[in-house]
Amino acid sequence: MPTGAKNSILDVPGVRVGHVTLSGGDLRTGVTAVLPHGDDLFRCKAPAACHVINGFGKSVGLMQVEELGAVETPILLTNTFSVPACASALIRMAIEANPAIGRTTSTVNPLVFECNDGALSDIQAMAVTEGHARAAIAAANETDCAEGDVGAGAGMSCFGFKGGIGTASRRLRVDGARRHLGALTLANFGRAGDLVLPDGRRPKPPNPAPEAAEKGSVIVVLATDVPLDNRQLRRVARRAGAGLARLGAFWGNGSGDIALAVSTAARIAHDEPRDVVATAMLNEARIDRVFRAAAEATQEAVLNALCAARPTHGRDGAVRPSLTNWLAARP
Amino acid sequence: MPTGAKNSILDVPGVRVGHVTLSGGDLRTGVTAVLPHGDDLFRCKAPAACHVINGFGKSVGLMQVEELGAVETPILLTNTFSVPACASALIRMAIEANPAIGRTTSTVNPLVFECNDGALSDIQAMAVTEGHARAAIAAANETDCAEGDVGAGAGMSCFGFKGGIGTASRRLRVDGARRHLGALTLANFGRAGDLVLPDGRRPKPPNPAPEAAEKGSVIVVLATDVPLDNRQLRRVARRAGAGLARLGAFWGNGSGDIALAVSTAARIAHDEPRDVVATAMLNEARIDRVFRAAAEATQEAVLNALCAARPTHGRDGAVRPSLTNWLAARP
Amino acid sequence: MPTGAKNSILDVPGVRVGHVTLSGGDLRTGVTAVLPHGDDLFRCKAPAACHVINGFGKSVGLMQVEELGAVETPILLTNTFSVPACASALIRMAIEANPAIGRTTSTVNPLVFECNDGALSDIQAMAVTEGHARAAIAAANETDCAEGDVGAGAGMSCFGFKGGIGTASRRLRVDGARRHLGALTLANFGRAGDLVLPDGRRPKPPNPAPEAAEKGSVIVVLATDVPLDNRQLRRVARRAGAGLARLGAFWGNGSGDIALAVSTAARIAHDEPRDVVATAMLNEARIDRVFRAAAEATQEAVLNALCAARPTHGRDGAVRPSLTNWLAARP
Amino acid sequence: MPTGAKNSILDVPGVRVGHVTLSGGDLRTGVTAVLPHGDDLFRCKAPAACHVINGFGKSVGLMQVEELGAVETPILLTNTFSVPACASALIRMAIEANPAIGRTTSTVNPLVFECNDGALSDIQAMAVTEGHARAAIAAANETDCAEGDVGAGAGMSCFGFKGGIGTASRRLRVDGARRHLGALTLANFGRAGDLVLPDGRRPKPPNPAPEAAEKGSVIVVLATDVPLDNRQLRRVARRAGAGLARLGAFWGNGSGDIALAVSTAARIAHDEPRDVVATAMLNEARIDRVFRAAAEATQEAVLNALCAARPTHGRDGAVRPSLTNWLAARP
Repeated sequence: MPTGAKNSILDVPGVRVGHVTLSGGDLRTGVTAVLPHGDDLFRCKAPAACHVINGFGKSVGLMQVEELGAVETPILLTNTFSVPACASALIRMAIEANPAIGRTTSTVNPLVFECNDGALSDIQAMAVTEGHARAAIAAANETDCAEGDVGAGAGMSCFGFKGGIGTASRRLRVDGARRHLGALTLANFGRAGDLVLPDGRRPKPPNPAPEAAEKGSVIVVLATDVPLDNRQLRRVARRAGAGLARLGAFWGNGSGDIALAVSTAARIAHDEPRDVVATAMLNEARIDRVFRAAAEATQEAVLNALCAARPTHGRDGAVRPSLTNWLAARP
Repeated sequence: MPTGAKNSILDVPGVRVGHVTLSGGDLRTGVTAVLPHGDDLFRCKAPAACHVINGFGKSVGLMQVEELGAVETPILLTNTFSVPACASALIRMAIEANPAIGRTTSTVNPLVFECNDGALSDIQAMAVTEGHARAAIAAANETDCAEGDVGAGAGMSCFGFKGGIGTASRRLRVDGARRHLGALTLANFGRAGDLVLPDGRRPKPPNPAPEAAEKGSVIVVLATDVPLDNRQLRRVARRAGAGLARLGAFWGNGSGDIALAVSTAARIAHDEPRDVVATAMLNEARIDRVFRAAAEATQEAVLNALCAARPTHGRDGAVRPSLTNWLAARP
Repeated sequence: MPTGAKNSILDVPGVRVGHVTLSGGDLRTGVTAVLPHGDDLFRCKAPAACHVINGFGKSVGLMQVEELGAVETPILLTNTFSVPACASALIRMAIEANPAIGRTTSTVNPLVFECNDGALSDIQAMAVTEGHARAAIAAANETDCAEGDVGAGAGMSCFGFKGGIGTASRRLRVDGARRHLGALTLANFGRAGDLVLPDGRRPKPPNPAPEAAEKGSVIVVLATDVPLDNRQLRRVARRAGAGLARLGAFWGNGSGDIALAVSTAARIAHDEPRDVVATAMLNEARIDRVFRAAAEATQEAVLNALCAARPTHGRDGAVRPSLTNWLAARP
Repeated sequence: MPTGAKNSILDVPGVRVGHVTLSGGDLRTGVTAVLPHGDDLFRCKAPAACHVINGFGKSVGLMQVEELGAVETPILLTNTFSVPACASALIRMAIEANPAIGRTTSTVNPLVFECNDGALSDIQAMAVTEGHARAAIAAANETDCAEGDVGAGAGMSCFGFKGGIGTASRRLRVDGARRHLGALTLANFGRAGDLVLPDGRRPKPPNPAPEAAEKGSVIVVLATDVPLDNRQLRRVARRAGAGLARLGAFWGNGSGDIALAVSTAARIAHDEPRDVVATAMLNEARIDRVFRAAAEATQEAVLNALCAARPTHGRDGAVRPSLTNWLAARP
C-alpha cells in the first residue's frame, strides 16, 4: 500500500506529536505526546479502542478506553516509573481547562503508556516531572515528528539495537476520498538476533546485552481518519500485533505490547445535548484495507525507529548500536 | 420503569417469537425462535452483541457475533443436545433463501442457544429435528408469545420450580419518542431455596431434587429499538446478569448463563454498496435507563416464566411444581 | 453460609488492612491498604485475578494482574485523583526493599484502585500524598479493620447514604479443613432509592443529591485461603457483581465497578529457581460454595459499610445520612 | 529451536491424529481428528485454552473451553457446514461411552473447528456425515499424521496455493527432561501474493482466484507436554497469531483464525473425588521458550501444509497449484 506524503502519523489530518527528551548523566528518557486533534480533548473526546497484545505493563487508562471507547486527554508515552507523574500532569491540565471536573461533572481518565528504558537510563530516578509532560504536550505540532532516540524513545532498545520513536503511514481511498492510517511506535522490544528485515536478513548487533529482551515492551498508537466504530477500531488495533510479529517478535513474556487505535473522523462531545447522535462506520466488507494498513504501518514504524535512532551510550557503560550503521556495513 | 403494552419482547416493533413444543412420553422439550424482524436476516443482519455470564454451555454462533456484531439467522433456543439439528436447519434455510452462500458469497453463522432439560426430558433421544426448528421459525409472529412450559421451555426447571419461557419489557423515551427494551428468557437455573421474590420472600418447593441446580442454565435475549452501537449493546447485554442475581442467582459453575442484545434500530446490508454507512447511537450519558431496563426486564421475564409454567411431570417420575401454586397457598 | 469469627477479610489468615483518613476542611478522603500477607510482596507475589464489572474507572495495575495472575505490591484504595501519588509510593517502596528493580530485574506493577469522593471532598486538591500511602501500609494489621467513613471510605456515598469501607466473610470446609473467603469493599455506588435490603425494604434518604449516582464506583477485594488457580480466581472475582446486584445495583454507566480476587494459599517467588512449580487447585465441581461465598460476602460487606458509616457533612454543604439512623427510625 | 523427531504434533507423547478424506465429483472435503490422549476424554479431560485471533467463524465448543479450561471430546476439524454433523457424532459417542451424560451427570461439550472449503468443494452438499466423523476418530493414531490435501484439508486453499493440513514441532528442555510443543494447522487463509517465505521470497500463483481470500480461515491446534496452567495455555495459544503473521497474514476480516492449546501434562478427572487437586505449572520466567516454540511451530506447520499439498482441481473448474511446484521452478 502507498505511504502518506510524510510517511508519518502526521499524515492523518489534525494529529499532533510533541517530544521532550532528557539526556545527560545517567538519564536517557523523556515524554512523547500524541494528540488526536488540537481542541480540548475532555470536551471533544476522540473515539478509540485498545488491544493488549501482552499485558506485562503498567500503562494507565486502558480500562476506561475499553468501556467507553474514548480518549479524553492527550496520549502520553514515557518510561515505566514516570507514569504517575505524567498521569498527574494530565489530571491537573484537564482540571485547569475544565474546572467542573470532579465537582459538577465526571472525573477525567488520563492515558499514559510506558516502556522500560532501565537498560540505558536510571529509571529509579523517576526523573520525568509533571513539567516535562506539560512541555511535551506544548511541543505537539502537526508539521514535524522527530524519530529515533527522542522523547520517550531516548533510552529504548529494540532487537539489541537502539530503538525509540518511529512513525509510518498508509494511504487509502474511502468513498472516493483520500484517507490515511498512521502509526507511531515506542519500540523497546525484541531479543538481539530475532529481528527479520523485509528482505529476510536477520541483523544482530555485536556483543548484545543478553538480558535486555526481558525488560522490553512496545507501544503502538494508530490514528486514522477513516470512519470506524468502536468494534472496528478494536479490530484495527489488534492488527498491530501482526506488524510486530513480521519483525520477528513473538510478544515475549516480559514485554508490554499494547496498541491503541484512535479515529479522527468523529468526536464525542462531553456535554452532548441530544439523546441520539448520528455517526458513521466503514462498510465491514471493506475493512481489510485498514487491517493491512495497520499491520504494514506498525512494521514500518518500528523499522523507521531503528533506522532513525543514533548509537547511544547509557548508564553503567551500556551501549546500543544503530541499525543504520549495521546496514551501511552490508551494502 | 413502566412496562410496554404487552410486557413482552413483542413490544419491540418487528420482533417475532415462535414455539414448537414436544411433550409426551419421556420428552418435555422443544424449540423457540426469536426473529429481530420479518425480512431475510442474512441479507439484512441485525446489530447485536453477546455477553457470557458463565460459559458452562454449548450454544453456537457467539464467536462471530462478538467479532462482527451481527445476527444473520433466526435465534433458536432448544435443549443442549439439539443444537446441531437446529444449526443444520438454519444453515439449510439460509442457503435455500440465498443460494450464493458458500459459493459466491460468505458462509452463514447459525445462532443457537441451549439449556439442559435432562431432568424432565430424555435429552439423549436428541428428539428435536430440523423440521421442528423450521416449524418454530414458521410459527414466529408479532402478536403472541406464549410463556412457561412451551417451546424450548417445555422441560426447563428454575429454583426447583417449573421454569421455561418468560418475557417482559420496559418503556423508555428517547428523543421524545417511545422506545422499548424487551427480554425473553429461557429459565433453567437456580437451586431450590435460592429464589428471592421482590418482596423478600424465598419460595422453596417441597422435596426438591437436590442435583437439579448442577445442570441448569439461562438464556436471555434482549431486543430494543433504541439506537445503540456494538459497544453499547455489549454493555446492555452484561446487565442481564444483574437481573438474574436479584433473583438469587450467583451464576453457578454448571450453569450456562448467556445474554444476547439485539437492536432493531438499524440493519446491516449483506451487499452494502457504500464504503461508509451512516448510523446512530445513544448519547452515552443517557444509557443508564437502558441498563436499568435490561436488569428489570430480565428479572421480571424469569418471574413471568415461573408464574406461567404449569406443574410438570417428566421422565422417571421427576416433578416440578409451579410457583403460582406456591404463591396461591400463601396469600 | 456461616461467617468467619470476625466477619471480616481478616478472617483469612495473613491478610492485613490499614487506613489513613484525611478529614477536615473540604477534605473527606484517605487511603486503605490491603496486604495479602506480611512478607515482601515483590519477592513473594500473591496469586490473583480481576474482573471489571463496569470500566468507568481509573484504577491502575489491572492489565498486568490479568496477564500474569499476580499481585506484587500492597493493594491501595483511594480517591480518583490520588491514584498517581499512591502508585508513586508503591514504586518507591518496592525499589527501597528491592534495589534490583528496574536495574537487574524487572519493574514493579503498582496496584491502586479508586472511587470518586468528589461529592463530599475536594478531590481537585489531590491532597493524598505518598506519605499517606506509606502510612496506610504501615498501619496494616491482622487484628482490626475499621469500617465505614475511614481510610479511602471517608468521603464515599452509597445509595444516597454515607458509604465507605465495609468487610464481611464466609466460612467453608475444604478437604476437612476450615477455610475462609473475605470481602473488603469501598462502597461509593448506587442511586438514592435503589437500595434493597435482604428483607425487601428499600431505604431512601430524605432529600438525596440527585446527581450523586453518576459519579459512583465500587471496589471489591476478595481474599481466600482456598487453593484456586488463576482461572478459578477470575470466576470467583466475577461473582462480586452478583452481590452488588442483589443490593439494587445495575452497574451504572458512570460507575467503576471492579473486583479483585487474591489467594493466600500459594505464593509466587520472584526468583523462582525451579523450571516447574507444584501447585494446587480446587476441584471445579466444588467451586459453587466459593462462588456463593463471594456473592454473599460482597453483599454483606457493602451493608456493613452502610451500617458502620456515620452521618457525614462534606464540602459545599453536602450531607450524607447514615443508614443506621434510617433503620433506627423504623424498628 | 530444534524440531522433534517427527517434526509433528505426534512428537508430543500420547497425541493422536486421524483423517477421513472425501474426494470425488464436486467434493474435496473431510474430517481430521486430534486426540490429546488415548483414553476416554469425558472421564479424563485435557487442560486447554483457546484464543480467537479473528472470529469470523463457526467453530463450536470454545465458550466452555474458555470457562472451564478443559477439552472433553476429540477435537474435530471439518468444513464450515459440517460442524453440526461432527458435533452430533461427538455427542452420541460420548453418550455411548458414558450413559450417565445428560441423565445423572452433566452434558458434554463437543469441540469442532471449521474452515470454508467452498472454493474447491460443494459445501452446500453438507456431505460429511456422523459416520465420517466417527471414522476419523477411529483412524486416529500415534504414528502417522498425513499432511496436505487430506482430511479436513482436502479442499482448503492458502495464499492462492493448495493448502490443508500441516504439522510441525519444537523440542524444549524443562527440568532436565525433553519436552515438545507440536502444532497442527488447517490452513485455508491468505490472499494470493501475500505469502512470505522465511528467506523473504513472495510466491504468487499464476492466475489466482481473486475472491478466495475473503472466504478463508485457519485453525491451529497446539499440544504440549510442558506443565502449564490455564492462564499459561491461553498465553501460548495467542502466540499462534505471531506464526501466521510471519507468513504474511494480517488476520483478514473474513478469516476465522482460531488457536487451541492443549496440555498433556495433566488430566482432569470428571469424577474427581478430592476437594483439592495437586497440579504443576511452568515457572513463568521460563515461558518465553514455549511462546517461541508456538510461533515457530505454527509458521512451519502452515509451510508444511503448503509443501505437502498436491495441485488440486475442484468444483466448477477451480484449481489450486502446489507451492512445491512453484519452488521447484525456482531453484
